[in-house]
Amino acid sequence: MSRKSSERSGRSDSSLRSSQGDREPVTGPDDGAVPAPVAESVPHAETPRPGLSRRGLLGLAAGVGAAGLAVGAGAGAAAGVAVGRSRAAAGATSPYAFYGPHQAGITTPVQDHLHFASFDMMPRTTREDLIELLQDWSYAASRMTQGLDVSASGAVGGSPEAPPDDTGEALGLAANGLTITFGFGPTLFTAADGTDRYGIAGRAPALLKTLPPFLGEDLAPDHTGGDLCIQACADDPQVAVHAIRNLSRIAFGRARLRWSQLGFGKTSKTTADQATPRNLFGFKDGTANILADDQAALDQHVWVGDGDEPAWLAGGSYLVARKIAMLIETWDRVRLSEQERITGRDKAHGAPLSGGQEQTDPDFAATGTSGKPAIDTHSHVRLAHPELNDGIRILRRGYNYVDGNTDLGRLDAGLFFLAYQRSPEQFITLQRALSTDLLNEYIRHIGSGIWAVPPGAVAGSYVGAGLFA
Amino acid sequence: MSRKSSERSGRSDSSLRSSQGDREPVTGPDDGAVPAPVAESVPHAETPRPGLSRRGLLGLAAGVGAAGLAVGAGAGAAAGVAVGRSRAAAGATSPYAFYGPHQAGITTPVQDHLHFASFDMMPRTTREDLIELLQDWSYAASRMTQGLDVSASGAVGGSPEAPPDDTGEALGLAANGLTITFGFGPTLFTAADGTDRYGIAGRAPALLKTLPPFLGEDLAPDHTGGDLCIQACADDPQVAVHAIRNLSRIAFGRARLRWSQLGFGKTSKTTADQATPRNLFGFKDGTANILADDQAALDQHVWVGDGDEPAWLAGGSYLVARKIAMLIETWDRVRLSEQERITGRDKAHGAPLSGGQEQTDPDFAATGTSGKPAIDTHSHVRLAHPELNDGIRILRRGYNYVDGNTDLGRLDAGLFFLAYQRSPEQFITLQRALSTDLLNEYIRHIGSGIWAVPPGAVAGSYVGAGLFA
Repeated sequence: MSRKSSERSGRSDSSLRSSQGDREPVTGPDDGAVPAPVAESVPHAETPRPGLSRRGLLGLAAGVGAAGLAVGAGAGAAAGVAVGRSRAAAGATSPYAFYGPHQAGITTPVQDHLHFASFDMMPRTTREDLIELLQDWSYAASRMTQGLDVSASGAVGGSPEAPPDDTGEALGLAANGLTITFGFGPTLFTAADGTDRYGIAGRAPALLKTLPPFLGEDLAPDHTGGDLCIQACADDPQVAVHAIRNLSRIAFGRARLRWSQLGFGKTSKTTADQATPRNLFGFKDGTANILADDQAALDQHVWVGDGDEPAWLAGGSYLVARKIAMLIETWDRVRLSEQERITGRDKAHGAPLSGGQEQTDPDFAATGTSGKPAIDTHSHVRLAHPELNDGIRILRRGYNYVDGNTDLGRLDAGLFFLAYQRSPEQFITLQRALSTDLLNEYIRHIGSGIWAVPPGAVAGSYVGAGLFA
Repeated sequence: MSRKSSERSGRSDSSLRSSQGDREPVTGPDDGAVPAPVAESVPHAETPRPGLSRRGLLGLAAGVGAAGLAVGAGAGAAAGVAVGRSRAAAGATSPYAFYGPHQAGITTPVQDHLHFASFDMMPRTTREDLIELLQDWSYAASRMTQGLDVSASGAVGGSPEAPPDDTGEALGLAANGLTITFGFGPTLFTAADGTDRYGIAGRAPALLKTLPPFLGEDLAPDHTGGDLCIQACADDPQVAVHAIRNLSRIAFGRARLRWSQLGFGKTSKTTADQATPRNLFGFKDGTANILADDQAALDQHVWVGDGDEPAWLAGGSYLVARKIAMLIETWDRVRLSEQERITGRDKAHGAPLSGGQEQTDPDFAATGTSGKPAIDTHSHVRLAHPELNDGIRILRRGYNYVDGNTDLGRLDAGLFFLAYQRSPEQFITLQRALSTDLLNEYIRHIGSGIWAVPPGAVAGSYVGAGLFA
């Protein structure tokens, strides 16, 4: 259990001591996908970084006025409180590096919990505001992913007369595999009214368009779209929530939360040693997912390539999110054989109905005793299969969600689908292929978003720097 | 990590084989509070138990008609699918016994995740319906808490031509410390219109009344009340959700979900070896909680005693649930010294402001350099302290919740407060004492419920049997 194995075993983390000042840089190995131990000594800077901007600190300190702010900003250098977060608790996952060629949280082994958030920029914000926000977010993310508070003075090391920089609920918790992944929506480049608010319309990826309508979808505006997104994943939900909450605070006056989603019990695996999890229909999900060690598949299907446009997105990806409500009670009353026909796999083991084991390739030509195809031609596994879709694959990273229940006493639950791909066309093609999916009777797409996910940042820089270079 | 340490290491659990038929009894050691290993061989019955009733099976099979039902009910004895849930995965917590003098889930070490559900009985249900529902729920809970499917044929062992008894999303997951705790609300005994639907009005605990109004509360009907409640706690959220989902299915036609709540990151500890967790205000919560090994305190403050009324509730308790919204963004802008004054403890370590460490008793007479009390007279810790409340204590077992965000872009989050006490008067007295709590500016009670929690069931019987004896 992540909480139990990582509970506050260390309380005096010297790297948090304020003698390093409020602006300490945090760096890490440059591979965003591989867990790497973090040096326990004072982090060293390859390039000096500014820490949080004045605006970022304003967000943290808002409400106390300029005097309070000045005290808050300066106090980190004076207070000597040696309470910090546990960075190397026995048994805890090593933190994942924040800096690297790719952002973490894509090929990173899927963590147990998700807090996803979509943001809109505030009216009258400038290009400089946007850049500063991304710098602040990157700085804070570089710290939190290492199990540190959002700033050096953090939750309890600042002035008693200022609001703490960090909200504190993750004090004593290790990083718990936290990854923080940022994305840019179509409306960031060109607003709904057509304006180029940040002078970046000309650099927008040509492929980054609001997704086309799909048959049967019923999208709710409060779970759709957004100028920016943040995917926070961790093995402890409190750590993921802490990340979104503090990044939201930092955005104060510049961007505001548009919608958000908590998820649990990952529905896909991204490494071979992860067992295939089950979705809320009780079936294994993600058996044929792209795995982190399949470099050729990642290069072909997930990462924007060096030759792709725009150049600043090389090493990045496109993230599609779909909130897919499951009509749980209806599904639960479908007979097992029908559930398996719809899915195209057996429920017990996840093997294709053409035979074999979970990892056996489905044989769509195989027939059953009746002479009909063993795998129904409208089954989910067939319609979504690369073999039927010109070899298209995507990297899925979804989570189950339960948002309580409806007024009718039914579970308000489903799949928060997250997928990374080199081009939005991959998702669009697959989703269109699924238009006759037998599963459609039991699901409904109610939320949607697409974001260009920049490559990882170089230590000392910030996510998305290439867009503004 | 609970998921990782317990992932489907065993897939052929002989106790699930259908040769035992569909009605196998499940028994366990009779101490609901202590984890105990479960025999891996065929469970033995101290008293034959009936398994799920026809109505319970109807709930599971609803939608396929009587013919389908008959097939479904009988098929468990014929199908030989040897897929089941992992009961003894390496490193997993041993299951907690379901049967015993007290229900599990009260003094059980607080698990990481909660799914709480409130139910109302359906119109025109009879006393026999209620009894049968409680029998079915107990039977299913006795299985699921041991890491088993809801019935012997379970998710994949039944007839292919019937809906599976179990919804399947917990296949391959161990029990993960699952406890399932049942409670009876005031309206179960006497409906809102005054009727005695089940012939139990005369046996209602005199103390079991809808809670009185409290200053400043703003209760939402869709998070308040309920004839019955189920608290499911586990170290894996998918396991807790699976339990509520399947118990809700079993209730089909007899009771329906009224409201529910997911929670994470427990806000209290119930054993000394658990570190004190933090709530979403960033403070340690539950430092002075009643612990499971403090038998004298449990007998005095938590368990209904042998001499208390009614006799059928002896060994039980009263559960109070309060959904407490936290005005997160407002709190986050309060300066640290003020946060600590409001709470009465320091944020870093949880020590009372009168000095010492977390476990040091607060000294309400101590004064600071200004001559004022070191602990503010209206601080939360003082107003809630037994010393100021005639020694009253309660056993808290709450969880943090985040239900996404509000339309204003603020976190819709707070504390789902759960407390067990020997008498509802304990909570009422404390809550009234908190009417001048400085914390009230930052919280709002928006949901509420009270339930009498019967003692644990004897193996072979069901929770609440004493009420109908």
